[in-house]
This record gives sequence, structure tokens and C-alpha cells, in this order.
Amino acid sequence: MRIGNTSHRSITALADASGVSIIDQTVLPHQLTRLSLKSLHDCAHAIAAMQVRGAPLIGITGAYGLALALREGASDALARTAHATLNATRPTAVNLRWALDRVLNCVLPLPLAQRADAAWALCNALAEEDVATNRAIGEHGLTVLRSLKPKCGDRLQIMTHCNAGWLATVDWGTALAPIYLAHDAGVPLHVWVSETRPRNQGAALTAWELAQHGVPHTLIADNASGHLIQRAEVDAVMVGADRITARGDVANKIGTYMKALAAHAHGVPFYVAAPWSTIDLTLQDGVSEIPIESRSGDEVLWFNGARTTPVQTQAFNPAFDVTPAHLLTAIITERGTLAPGDVQKSSPSLV
Amino acid sequence: MRIGNTSHRSITALADASGVSIIDQTVLPHQLTRLSLKSLHDCAHAIAAMQVRGAPLIGITGAYGLALALREGASDALARTAHATLNATRPTAVNLRWALDRVLNCVLPLPLAQRADAAWALCNALAEEDVATNRAIGEHGLTVLRSLKPKCGDRLQIMTHCNAGWLATVDWGTALAPIYLAHDAGVPLHVWVSETRPRNQGAALTAWELAQHGVPHTLIADNASGHLIQRAEVDAVMVGADRITARGDVANKIGTYMKALAAHAHGVPFYVAAPWSTIDLTLQDGVSEIPIESRSGDEVLWFNGARTTPVQTQAFNPAFDVTPAHLLTAIITERGTLAPGDVQKSSPSLV
Repeated sequence: MRIGNTSHRSITALADASGVSIIDQTVLPHQLTRLSLKSLHDCAHAIAAMQVRGAPLIGITGAYGLALALREGASDALARTAHATLNATRPTAVNLRWALDRVLNCVLPLPLAQRADAAWALCNALAEEDVATNRAIGEHGLTVLRSLKPKCGDRLQIMTHCNAGWLATVDWGTALAPIYLAHDAGVPLHVWVSETRPRNQGAALTAWELAQHGVPHTLIADNASGHLIQRAEVDAVMVGADRITARGDVANKIGTYMKALAAHAHGVPFYVAAPWSTIDLTLQDGVSEIPIESRSGDEVLWFNGARTTPVQTQAFNPAFDVTPAHLLTAIITERGTLAPGDVQKSSPSLV
Repeated sequence: MRIGNTSHRSITALADASGVSIIDQTVLPHQLTRLSLKSLHDCAHAIAAMQVRGAPLIGITGAYGLALALREGASDALARTAHATLNATRPTAVNLRWALDRVLNCVLPLPLAQRADAAWALCNALAEEDVATNRAIGEHGLTVLRSLKPKCGDRLQIMTHCNAGWLATVDWGTALAPIYLAHDAGVPLHVWVSETRPRNQGAALTAWELAQHGVPHTLIADNASGHLIQRAEVDAVMVGADRITARGDVANKIGTYMKALAAHAHGVPFYVAAPWSTIDLTLQDGVSEIPIESRSGDEVLWFNGARTTPVQTQAFNPAFDVTPAHLLTAIITERGTLAPGDVQKSSPSLV
């Protein structure tokens, strides 16, 4: 996607294949800084510190981390250890495990000497695949957006949460891909961007992406979401996902669940846009089965270097919540748009 | 209430009756600063700039502002102009109009020379009345809390929003009054404090009050509220109100509505604690009839001197939302606890 007049991806292989270049998402929107990651450690740190975030991008970054680790030692044991180290960086998004599994399953049958190169080539392919996947999500989502009629005025009002844009993927994004395609196709629309406390990915990343692309948008406090939905100021909610269970329950950024409750209460369609790699067919009940990452309370207690609350006060900081399938209108994937109850029967083994 | 070992009120008449002393709530929790307000202008500014906030405290501060204005000129016209100026400072809370009406109705029948003194005496009485009112709300709310059983563990988990503590009133608070009384009575409890973006009254004020009083509490991002309710970590939600309509719809700090939706979805009782002066019997449908204040987008765009979002991005900042009566379990007032549908028939003219 564009930053000014130049085209960027959130992660690219370095020209000499010595590692990858990422955008440091912790310093946006005010600084655009690219970092080079050249080892498993670099990749694991970038994921844990949220220099890269977003389920699909975490997956690709983890895969490159495993490929880089294989250059240091390609035995089965070392490969499995590297897989485990990277997989433990963040527990909720399943795309990370999916991507790591793809690399491991690719290399284990190979002679040791071929493993690192094969893994690297696969990572490059996975990155290209991610771009194509998100573009396809965008196309299916565009069809959905074209089917909606604005309730007020002449432009669609879409609400999103957190960042499920191109920064959360290699390119295009998931929830924002349909919005970019619709905007480019001349569909009049405006996006409500919720700031997404405690890490402000909406304010810092989604608003920045939309501003760079020229998509009309307005920032709101997360608290204002229900009010806007109640006042008929929202035609659809469109969010990403970190894990989707077989029955269609969706883990996504903390705060998603209350937006879904509000949308449901007012008959506003609620869409989840995600690649098929987000689906975890081993789980059914999202609320009881999806592991929810708890991050440091400091993310809530401190803001821009200042403590917002007394020193005696502690914080609890769950990073995700689970929206049960019955609150979803549809899940938009690269294979098409499906009802949440159709996830299992549409799975690869059955299609 | 206590700050360390000394007892404070959020507003007190100066010893020489030249004005009032308030706590500047914009610099809490890190600085405890009292300011003297000595004119209508001082009081109007303190309300508009949220140096004082909270529906009951806004009412008392406005009343003192009108009393101070009457010293400069006590004609009917000047009194009405002062009333209008103060009433326009913040549009949503009805307690302000209620308190201003009480002062105006008190002084208009009096000779000009007596008006300022009579208004001052009434303000002092209204402040004392507020303390007694909130203490009574606390007693009725304590009965409610004693009727609840902890779902997990051996202590009640109460979620609140914004600040409806003693800082929002002259003393005791509304939603926090039952919590203080329960804590003092040895009822084991813990309070989930949502930070309350964009102005962080939960993080800065409620957490500070609870910490000073020694009440166990944990700060959360507003976004985490639905997740905690879904996980059975909340036994009741207890919030204040800025206006309650005849049919029981409640305007309160932005974000309240989504907490109510989540509580309703999981059968968690949702209580509104407020003085009778918060009830506006002239309105029925809160969503269409209660004026919702929109504040500067800068409150969302900036934090602690830093912009969180690109310069091209604008913000929309509604300060309140409306929770329809059907989502409420009960309204706790100084007269007792009533079903939201019983507001009108319990009104003073009918009791």
C-alpha cells in the first residue's frame, strides 16, 4: 500500500536474504522506521514487543524467524525448539502456529543441508500468498459492502476496531481490504476508527493507514462505539480476527465483543474478515477454549510516559476477547463469505 | 472522605464566605490542589473545564456561582442571565438546572437586598443536603450489595465506570457510596475500575478515591469490560447518572451503554445510583430527548501533550450515552431502590 507516493509492505525479505525488513509499528504514526530482523531472537522480540502485530503478520514474521533459526542449526530438535520459542511469543492468534507448522512440515522431510534454503523460499511464498489472500478477502468484502445501503446520508458508515489493515498483514489487510477496494472503486464511505485502548492501534495505525490512503475517517474513544451504533450512525462493523473456532466463535482485540453486542442490539451487520489460516478447527467453544493473552498492566497504567492512575493501583490487561458466533453476520475469507455456522463444513478436508 | 488522615469535601464554602474552595480534578491523581472560586465566571469556567465534574457537584458549584453573581447584581434580569450562563456550561446533567432553579426560585420572591445572602445560605444547605442524600443512597445501595452473592471466590466483584464517587458530589458519591459503606462494614469486595476514555476519570479519580480509602480495586481498559462480564468476573455493575427520564432511561458517561448491554447479555445486575435531582420528568425517551454534549475532539486526539494519531485525523467526542430502561436492574436513590419503570409513579407529585 502507499505511504505518500511510494509502495510499501509491512515485511519484506532483505535483498541479500540475510533477514527481513519490518516497519516498527510501536513508533507510528509519527515516525516511519524500518528495522532489520536477522535472527530468531530478533523475530521473537519483534513479535512479543509488538513491533509487528496483527495475526497474519505475526504468522509471516514467525515463519521467517524459524527459517533464520534453521541457518544456525537445522536438526529436528533445533527446528522444534525454534518452533516452540516462536509459538510462545503470543498465545491467542493461531496464524502464528499455522505458519510455523507450514515451515516445519516443509523442512522435516528434507536433508539438513537443504532445510534453511527451503524454509526461506517457503517464507517468501507464504508472504506472497498472504498478499493474494488479503486481496481476495477484499474482493469478497467489496461485494458485501456493495450490498449495503447507507442509513443516513449518501455514504456508508463502517466501524472498525484495532488495526486489521495492511500493517496487520503483509499487504492489503483483512478488515480494511474491502474498505480500500471500495474506496478505490468510488463507493462513498467513511470509517469510524476506535482508538483501541490500551495500545491505541486504532488511533496510531488504522487512522494512519486510512489517512495515507485518503479514506475519510474519524477517530472515536472506544466508549463511543455503542452510542454511534444506537444512533444509526453505523451501517456495518468490520473487524479482523486472531482465531476462529469450528463453530464460528471469534477471538479478536479486546473490545470487539461489546461492539458485537451493540451491533446485534440494533440490527447492524457485524463482519469478521480473516484468512482461512485464522480458523482453528481443533476448538469449538471460543470462550472456554481459546487462550487469551494477558499483557503487562503497565500498558494500561502508563500512557505516553505518564502514569494515569495512583501508584497503589494495579491493572488487569487481557489483550483479546471472544465474540460468540451468534453475534456475527458473516465471516469474510479468501474463499468467500460464509455464515459463522458454516465454518466447519467449509473446512478444507470437507470441501 | 479521607485523603490520608484528613477529611475533605470536594467543595466547601470559604471561611469568609467570599467564595468556595474546590479540588482541581484536572490535576489528580498526582496533585491535590484546591482552587478558590469567587465569581460566576470562576464557577462557570471550573464546570466547563471540568475542574469540577460529576452531575451532583456540577449542580452545587453552579448554585454557588449563581449566589456569587447575585452579589454583583440581584435584579430579576441579572439573576436570569446568570442562571442561563451557568446552565449552558454543560448540557447533559440535569442536576445543574435543578440546583440553579432552586436558587432562582428561592430568591425571586425576595427583596433585592436579601437575595445574595439568601442564595448563599441556600447553597450551603444544598451542599449539606447533597451529603445526606448520598449517604442515604449509600445505605440503600448497601442493602442491595448485601443481597448479592459472589459468583467466584468470597468477595463481591463490582464494576463501575467513570467517577461517581465523592469527587462527583459534595461527599460520599453516588455509585461509590454503597461501596464505601460495604467496605467499611466488612463486606469483602473488589472494584473493577474502567479507565473511562477519553478523560480517564476512572483511572485518575475513581482509582485515587478507592486507593485513599483502602478499597481493593483493579484498573482495566474500557474495552475489557465485556470480557470480564462474559467470564463471570463481575457480580454487579454500579454506575452514576447525569439524567434519568420519566420512563427510566439513563444518560451517563460515554461507554455506560455497552457495559449495560454486556451485563444484560450475561444476567449480571446493573444498578444506577443517583439522587432524585437527576430525574427529569419532562422527558420520556432518553435516546431521542436527552441532549448529549459533544466535547472537543482534542480530548481524544491528544494525551498528556502528545498526539496519538496523524495530524490529518479528526475526532468525534460525545461525552455521554443513553442506556434504555430495559437494561437496568434498579435505580438506587436517596428515597430507596426502585425499578426503572417506577420512576414516574414514584415522583414527588405522586408520592
